[in-house]
Amino acid sequence: MPANEATVLQFRSDPEGDKARAMCGIFGIVGHPEASNLTYLGLHALQHRGQESAGIVASDGHSLQAHREMGLVADIFTAPVLEKLPGGAAIGHVRYSTAGGSQLKNAQPLSVEYVGGHMAVAHNGNLVNAQELRTALEADGAIFQSDADTEVVVHFIARSKQPTFEQKAVEALSKVKGAYSILFLTENKLVAVRDPYGFRPLVLGKLKNSWVLASETTALDLIEAEFIRELEAGEMVVIDETGLHSSQPFQPTRLGRCIFEHVYFAKPDSVLFGTSVYETRKELGRQLAKEQPAPGADLVIAVPDSGVPAAIGYAQESGIPYDVGLIRSHYVGRTFIEPQQSIRHFGVKLKLSAVRQVLKGKRVVVVDDSIVRGTTSRKIVKMLKAAGAVEVHLRISSPPTQWPCYYGIDTPSRQELIASSHSVEEIARYVTADTLGYISLEGLGTAVGDRERTTFCTACFSGKYLTGELNNASAPSTESAPKLAIIA
Amino acid sequence: MPANEATVLQFRSDPEGDKARAMCGIFGIVGHPEASNLTYLGLHALQHRGQESAGIVASDGHSLQAHREMGLVADIFTAPVLEKLPGGAAIGHVRYSTAGGSQLKNAQPLSVEYVGGHMAVAHNGNLVNAQELRTALEADGAIFQSDADTEVVVHFIARSKQPTFEQKAVEALSKVKGAYSILFLTENKLVAVRDPYGFRPLVLGKLKNSWVLASETTALDLIEAEFIRELEAGEMVVIDETGLHSSQPFQPTRLGRCIFEHVYFAKPDSVLFGTSVYETRKELGRQLAKEQPAPGADLVIAVPDSGVPAAIGYAQESGIPYDVGLIRSHYVGRTFIEPQQSIRHFGVKLKLSAVRQVLKGKRVVVVDDSIVRGTTSRKIVKMLKAAGAVEVHLRISSPPTQWPCYYGIDTPSRQELIASSHSVEEIARYVTADTLGYISLEGLGTAVGDRERTTFCTACFSGKYLTGELNNASAPSTESAPKLAIIA
Amino acid sequence: MPANEATVLQFRSDPEGDKARAMCGIFGIVGHPEASNLTYLGLHALQHRGQESAGIVASDGHSLQAHREMGLVADIFTAPVLEKLPGGAAIGHVRYSTAGGSQLKNAQPLSVEYVGGHMAVAHNGNLVNAQELRTALEADGAIFQSDADTEVVVHFIARSKQPTFEQKAVEALSKVKGAYSILFLTENKLVAVRDPYGFRPLVLGKLKNSWVLASETTALDLIEAEFIRELEAGEMVVIDETGLHSSQPFQPTRLGRCIFEHVYFAKPDSVLFGTSVYETRKELGRQLAKEQPAPGADLVIAVPDSGVPAAIGYAQESGIPYDVGLIRSHYVGRTFIEPQQSIRHFGVKLKLSAVRQVLKGKRVVVVDDSIVRGTTSRKIVKMLKAAGAVEVHLRISSPPTQWPCYYGIDTPSRQELIASSHSVEEIARYVTADTLGYISLEGLGTAVGDRERTTFCTACFSGKYLTGELNNASAPSTESAPKLAIIA
Amino acid sequence: MPANEATVLQFRSDPEGDKARAMCGIFGIVGHPEASNLTYLGLHALQHRGQESAGIVASDGHSLQAHREMGLVADIFTAPVLEKLPGGAAIGHVRYSTAGGSQLKNAQPLSVEYVGGHMAVAHNGNLVNAQELRTALEADGAIFQSDADTEVVVHFIARSKQPTFEQKAVEALSKVKGAYSILFLTENKLVAVRDPYGFRPLVLGKLKNSWVLASETTALDLIEAEFIRELEAGEMVVIDETGLHSSQPFQPTRLGRCIFEHVYFAKPDSVLFGTSVYETRKELGRQLAKEQPAPGADLVIAVPDSGVPAAIGYAQESGIPYDVGLIRSHYVGRTFIEPQQSIRHFGVKLKLSAVRQVLKGKRVVVVDDSIVRGTTSRKIVKMLKAAGAVEVHLRISSPPTQWPCYYGIDTPSRQELIASSHSVEEIARYVTADTLGYISLEGLGTAVGDRERTTFCTACFSGKYLTGELNNASAPSTESAPKLAIIA
Repeated sequence: MPANEATVLQFRSDPEGDKARAMCGIFGIVGHPEASNLTYLGLHALQHRGQESAGIVASDGHSLQAHREMGLVADIFTAPVLEKLPGGAAIGHVRYSTAGGSQLKNAQPLSVEYVGGHMAVAHNGNLVNAQELRTALEADGAIFQSDADTEVVVHFIARSKQPTFEQKAVEALSKVKGAYSILFLTENKLVAVRDPYGFRPLVLGKLKNSWVLASETTALDLIEAEFIRELEAGEMVVIDETGLHSSQPFQPTRLGRCIFEHVYFAKPDSVLFGTSVYETRKELGRQLAKEQPAPGADLVIAVPDSGVPAAIGYAQESGIPYDVGLIRSHYVGRTFIEPQQSIRHFGVKLKLSAVRQVLKGKRVVVVDDSIVRGTTSRKIVKMLKAAGAVEVHLRISSPPTQWPCYYGIDTPSRQELIASSHSVEEIARYVTADTLGYISLEGLGTAVGDRERTTFCTACFSGKYLTGELNNASAPSTESAPKLAIIA
Repeated sequence: MPANEATVLQFRSDPEGDKARAMCGIFGIVGHPEASNLTYLGLHALQHRGQESAGIVASDGHSLQAHREMGLVADIFTAPVLEKLPGGAAIGHVRYSTAGGSQLKNAQPLSVEYVGGHMAVAHNGNLVNAQELRTALEADGAIFQSDADTEVVVHFIARSKQPTFEQKAVEALSKVKGAYSILFLTENKLVAVRDPYGFRPLVLGKLKNSWVLASETTALDLIEAEFIRELEAGEMVVIDETGLHSSQPFQPTRLGRCIFEHVYFAKPDSVLFGTSVYETRKELGRQLAKEQPAPGADLVIAVPDSGVPAAIGYAQESGIPYDVGLIRSHYVGRTFIEPQQSIRHFGVKLKLSAVRQVLKGKRVVVVDDSIVRGTTSRKIVKMLKAAGAVEVHLRISSPPTQWPCYYGIDTPSRQELIASSHSVEEIARYVTADTLGYISLEGLGTAVGDRERTTFCTACFSGKYLTGELNNASAPSTESAPKLAIIA
Repeated sequence: MPANEATVLQFRSDPEGDKARAMCGIFGIVGHPEASNLTYLGLHALQHRGQESAGIVASDGHSLQAHREMGLVADIFTAPVLEKLPGGAAIGHVRYSTAGGSQLKNAQPLSVEYVGGHMAVAHNGNLVNAQELRTALEADGAIFQSDADTEVVVHFIARSKQPTFEQKAVEALSKVKGAYSILFLTENKLVAVRDPYGFRPLVLGKLKNSWVLASETTALDLIEAEFIRELEAGEMVVIDETGLHSSQPFQPTRLGRCIFEHVYFAKPDSVLFGTSVYETRKELGRQLAKEQPAPGADLVIAVPDSGVPAAIGYAQESGIPYDVGLIRSHYVGRTFIEPQQSIRHFGVKLKLSAVRQVLKGKRVVVVDDSIVRGTTSRKIVKMLKAAGAVEVHLRISSPPTQWPCYYGIDTPSRQELIASSHSVEEIARYVTADTLGYISLEGLGTAVGDRERTTFCTACFSGKYLTGELNNASAPSTESAPKLAIIA
Repeated sequence: MPANEATVLQFRSDPEGDKARAMCGIFGIVGHPEASNLTYLGLHALQHRGQESAGIVASDGHSLQAHREMGLVADIFTAPVLEKLPGGAAIGHVRYSTAGGSQLKNAQPLSVEYVGGHMAVAHNGNLVNAQELRTALEADGAIFQSDADTEVVVHFIARSKQPTFEQKAVEALSKVKGAYSILFLTENKLVAVRDPYGFRPLVLGKLKNSWVLASETTALDLIEAEFIRELEAGEMVVIDETGLHSSQPFQPTRLGRCIFEHVYFAKPDSVLFGTSVYETRKELGRQLAKEQPAPGADLVIAVPDSGVPAAIGYAQESGIPYDVGLIRSHYVGRTFIEPQQSIRHFGVKLKLSAVRQVLKGKRVVVVDDSIVRGTTSRKIVKMLKAAGAVEVHLRISSPPTQWPCYYGIDTPSRQELIASSHSVEEIARYVTADTLGYISLEGLGTAVGDRERTTFCTACFSGKYLTGELNNASAPSTESAPKLAIIA
């Protein structure tokens, strides 16, 4: 037994792997003595929208207390930390996970002092003109402490001569373009605004006498708050001691609700843009089965967990039995160490295991929600075949992802999106699938109840960016996107 | 917004909640330069068998190096820790999670010095006569540093006058009664033994020139080792520089393979006792559908993830559509803080969310693998009804759990097992299900291919303990079992 | 042996206990490939100037990388952290220790982006008009992320229309009043400025081809840099690729070097304002012996470590033998837990032990550098008497501390300074000393070579604040000052 | 400013540097409701006797609870940890610091179960026949979980057929040879024993109704316990519910009190073997001045802190003024990172700073307590000369250390002790001192009041080991001794 000190490498097994990532989740509550505790629970329910950092700012009516940290909600907000966030109002934020280092300065909610006192901001979305606004603000003497686009909004509020906070906020937001579902907290009020396209979701709920705002209804459900309604695109809601006040400072020209929230981001038990995420995904699967059948296949499996609803829909529509061919580990999302020689193997395998006896000798339809770079799909197809599948028919419940998102989703650059430069046939060959079929854009529209896609943003599939030319747009931070050469 | 410093409480959201728990997983490899790295990966694959502590002992041919810690495999075995475990052979152990404190002294593998040099031991199972053996050993001057039953085996080996390590081990094991799949590591050999009942699984694999031993085949699959065979009940395998040597020191009278491994513990992608865990569970679902139909139900859902295979089988057999009514969070298994007033609400809700649109107005069959205390089932049924289910028909893919396990599974005491003192009807009432149906013992046997149950241990259902009277038996540590009053 | 779960309390045994505290130490280096590593060492040498938080910002010529954290230098700057601070230039900062919580937002160096690129700032001192400047800046739309007075300087630089960074810095600093020894780092230059009074020290050194700036010479000594000279009051030094450039943008009206640096703050091996700190302190002891003799005393002891040099001077001048009557623990500066009933006892005792055999039956002169609240002196005198001293003559090597410092030292408010409201005789009675003697203001001046005190600031003793009326001055943060009732 | 990622190395700046190290400190208390809290304080007072690990075992009358951890007392024993150590009796242990890794298994107190119930043991000293006893025990079937010599005592107790615990302990201790001051804790009694030579100290104190045992009186002083007396060599003290009982199971042939405790190990404020440590050290300095004068020298300085008392004695005797030429940092004892190229420089400099103005142009006598390898002395002499000293006369308040200790002190092997193979003149040359003078063995005896050295062990100076031939002796663990080549 010769000793051998093997070199070990570290890599991060991301729970979502090679997927586009939602960039943020937000939560706010006002009028509850346990505001920060409930915010903590709400953020836990929204954890899938961001795993890099989390923060809560609470108001006790006189001042704001903040805590932001890199990591997961349940690790950050221990009892001693929550005790230092007293007060009847709070907002919170979760931010997406990057492979890279600690960028604590970009964690939200931002909190600052300005001429009007304290304010804190939690933002989900991305502003396409942030860079030019930042340049202008800097030219006028502003200093920036973070890389976040959100910081420009804070500056505009601080510089506004409007008399009230909400008027300052409207003035500030009237200068920005892009996607924002945003919460502001001051010493004595909470203000929520949704951009006039309604890119990102934002819902209003009620818990006894408290008002609650959250990115998704799943957060309301966890704390047993009643779902009241979604905020309208362009709507502002102000909650203070006199109650809740709604106004419509921004007029929508057309809606641009993010269709990818339905495809992948939102939690399946949420109700989004008026419909059930789970039911919509199952409908996507049914539509996919109509458009891209797999005659002769023995069974339909999902890439868990995100592909499960569409796979069930596909199975129901096609009549091919649904089964479980891939098991997802409960213990991913941490840093793993791997034997060096085998570094290429373990990535997906640490997360997914193939069920050999289900797959052996079978012609398998495997349903996933999207393909980004193709690398993970390739590993999954190979894993299925190694486990004995004789045919693998990959079905994708969204159209080919060809364009980066500028409205709050962390996608790789265009060059890295395999579908931007490769045909479906080429992609099939790369991922080693016997056949590959995507749902059509029309089919996607149909499944979400908007065949003409007049109320959704589909830019990642169609390249049609609703806010116009984006040549100089502020792209979302793509530091998390390792550069990969695809297809040798 | 009045400030109010709410008191917060901490509780642990166990990923498995109110379930019986496998007490351990073991892994060993010999003849590989990255032995401890691969053991780390193997333990990760077996993490579901124990989340309290993990340990690895490695041999470089001259001495053993050990590391044991409370926590999860991926958190404990960082690169610097693994670098201190050099050598070509290693064994590892994961241990179950308790609500309580750090009992580091009970973490395995045990490692000691004795007259023959160093030895380390990793044990899955439970010895029913450990307490009386311990008392005898103490009377003879032995000192004990842990509460683990395994420590008696170590003492017997150290006291044995047999010439070889394997003979010492056989002599020692001949004195103990109960369940053991056990790995020993010395400076220059690895010895694996399975008790003559074959209670706990233990498989042999091969990775190029290395031999691998593991509790389940899923660990072989992760490291891409070839599955050779299961160890026989009563078999001993010795691996040293001269290769692998098998012998049969203990003669089985009858087999007693743990049927609960198939019902719940093993990972679904493992092959266990010769059959696929996943397929067996699906078959349990089919049998359950035959025995306990739910005519008129609209859909079948699972309590995820463990209930999924049986739910799919139930759906296939009954023709009632399978769907997803409960979503499992990816972020459980950590310590949560809860607002005090609502402490009773959040336990299961932090782990599971109901999909309202799937459930609303529906008559739902919900399939779970077992009921222990009934408290979790009760919460789940209530959650389903709160989400709109008009009827909930609970179906359990194992018979009523009435007896504690003395062979390596952490079950509560008899009084806490709801089925030990309540009829099915009473349990149904307690969990607020419209109907409740368990699979029969015969049906369970049929599904696992042993209708007469002559090769399985079914003591937890039948009370028939294969090792005889257990009035004075060494019960497994039940410190993790909070005492609960059931049914008011 | 009855069990009894005693309640325990936590308190922090501050290494400096009940003393005024220097608020910061700064260090910078430019032109060295290991800039951040040397900054780390320099900050370690300056750790006595601030134990709350530490930070380093490094420039690689293109951008700035920052790391700030609560805690001690040696704990914060691990190898992985330092590796993320590459580049040939760096500045660092240590900040004083508060009893309270984490105020990470106030840790320095500050680093921001503005119209000119990146800048980072490390400041030692306190600006007396910061609050009014901040109010004005806020009225003009500025946002503030910290409570630090330093942040106003950053805003003024960002708003300056001057063409070069150094001109912007001069314009900004011309608006502030008070104490500043300050370092700025941009992508390609390091700028150091000292206020026209020269309140806080700042020295220039050279390490081969690198220029070094530090609060004290002890930091130069540690890294083996050559001490070149002290910066002049009002001087600015700019170091960039063209070398070092000095100018004198601010003209001193008179010098106001902090005399308390000599009395207590600076490390004894430093050379400060042109003279040796250690020799100055010994001279203070000699002068004290002349002014406040203790005829008949048996021995002179120090309150270690800060009282040692003056005690030796006192012994030499008086001819009374010097001895060690109090031993300082090497293990203070951490959080201690104490049995509740005895909470009042342990504070000073965890830090100091009395040497009974030295003190027993002796008339003891004990020399300390200053008395702030009197509480610690009282404990020390009592400890000496409990150890057998028959007389305790307390001698203080500075005049009574009657006024808070507004120039960068953390003193309690006036009400808490025992000497502001009590006569020497009353203080002696409170601290239970047989006699108490302070050095005179003239004697202090004489000892530091400035009998008329025309080049030193003595405001803490005299109330003569050099920057004029301070009724509305920005006081230093005094959150660390627990409010104590003195003298019952 | 070119970027350059300098490689960094880690090394540990030991607070005691290149010194022999006391291996342990012990503390016990019985009859106090806050037993573990007071043990924590007592261990803090004894921290100088061991910085590697600490442990406490407490009894609540029914069972023992233990906590052992690597690190410093104040870091390990947080409030939650102490709360888990309830009961009216406790013993504790601190262990010396090694450069290497975590050897948690060797931390004390040991605690085990055996035929008589629970016992815990805290041992200061070293058993010279431990290895042969261990071999015999192993041959008889014993297993060992640690490398500690102490474990053999536990085995002998467990195997004893004596009726009472104290009789078992006497039987066990009668088999061991060497140094032991040892505390045993059972459910209902505390037993303290000192070996018949009285190598290591052990004192008895009283705190109201509680009995206290501690290695040194400084621990009694901290908790304000009254010092009753030192335990006699060979004495056993048993404290249970019936009170304190003393007996003399082991008859001393001659005393062998460790003279190095007086020279270096014990805290100066302790009273040891009947005399004040501080006064003894000062007397050593006086004797040293008589034997090794330094005519013409300008001043006497100490290597702080351990050399201070002898330096003061030397100054008093010689009439040469005492001064402070080296300042000790308050922030050592942690892990430091160093720029790679300068690794050789920083070791001692991070701990000590030279006071240039004191030393410049001076002929300096520097007093230290001992020289082990000579490496640190060499660095100190060089540092003094670099600071301007024109002559350095090194004076050592103990004779040349030529022999390793087998009685509980961690010295390097004989080859590493510079004085074992080099003359005083050669050592002087190596350390670059102008002159070097050691106190004589007779002078040492005189200073401690035992000119003939009939009551002290002086083996480290004389090679006369009181327990006879030690060719096969169990040496103390010397893993902490890095192998160094001395003198090129």
